[in-house]
Amino acid sequence: MKKRSIPITKANYLINHGPTVLITSGTEERDNIMTLAWQMPASGNPVRLAISVAPERFSHELITQGKAFGVNLPTIQLYKTVLLCGSQSGREIDKFKRSGLTRMAAKKIPCPLIRECVAHIECRLVNAWNAGDHTIFLGEVVAACADEDAFNSHLQLNNNIQTLHHMGGPYFAHPLGVKELTI
Amino acid sequence: MKKRSIPITKANYLINHGPTVLITSGTEERDNIMTLAWQMPASGNPVRLAISVAPERFSHELITQGKAFGVNLPTIQLYKTVLLCGSQSGREIDKFKRSGLTRMAAKKIPCPLIRECVAHIECRLVNAWNAGDHTIFLGEVVAACADEDAFNSHLQLNNNIQTLHHMGGPYFAHPLGVKELTI
Repeated sequence: MKKRSIPITKANYLINHGPTVLITSGTEERDNIMTLAWQMPASGNPVRLAISVAPERFSHELITQGKAFGVNLPTIQLYKTVLLCGSQSGREIDKFKRSGLTRMAAKKIPCPLIRECVAHIECRLVNAWNAGDHTIFLGEVVAACADEDAFNSHLQLNNNIQTLHHMGGPYFAHPLGVKELTI
Repeated sequence: MKKRSIPITKANYLINHGPTVLITSGTEERDNIMTLAWQMPASGNPVRLAISVAPERFSHELITQGKAFGVNLPTIQLYKTVLLCGSQSGREIDKFKRSGLTRMAAKKIPCPLIRECVAHIECRLVNAWNAGDHTIFLGEVVAACADEDAFNSHLQLNNNIQTLHHMGGPYFAHPLGVKELTI
């Protein structure tokens, strides 16, 4: 998988279609992966995105302390990891070890990224708001890259790449292909 | 299309997979529809969701004034409406009239809903935060309903229902069917 840098101004396109992502946080000494469906782009200039995380999660602690997080885009091939990282706590297990995933150094943040994912967005925490029983973390995009075989030059997913879109429980929608729609 | 009420506690499942939605705001006298990809569930108890809207949008004004908005889920059959409502301003045109869509009364908010959509979530505004060049509106879910033929009793999309997942410009991913994934 060969990754190319994506301009920060275009980074939000990598998650604009609402996929479930894997959030990485912490540092080499103590890091974590969490599965997360509650994400959205939140600003175009500066480029920012928002994620919603419950305070009891280990990742909440790591993001609050480290003020940074990575957004990693898994495809359907990683569905076992997506299920594992959404059902176990990083306080108890090393999710990289348990899932067999590989840490990849980020460019601008101390958190690891997940090599097996097809796209990565590095964020620095700029704000945190109480939304109820979750915290909305606002992250500013400081770097991004994507697999050349997964995203074409317009940042559209290639037809053989299926992202995962969580519908609750073990249910996921998974688009096959992208259409250009015009009036 | 026969719609059934959805328990508020389950309303977020209707948009958990990241579809592009149509946001309705305002009242009978002056209302609007906007296409919006930047949405996410934000709290489980109380049940809340977040949308990110640019301040220059007409819908931003209507949501700020009316302190409520509707989330309507279109399928691929409504793609012309999705494109229209994402490219024209409601200050200049009546989008219901232009798109041929039908207003449907909401139960708990003064905003209209869009009858041709397959699911609806009614929200009262509880907070608004500056995220950069967009505002994050936090809405508390006060009512929800969905088309019986579109969502099964587990709130999974039926196989012939394709939601739209915006990837930028005229490009949309559109899941066909939902899979149960287990480790």
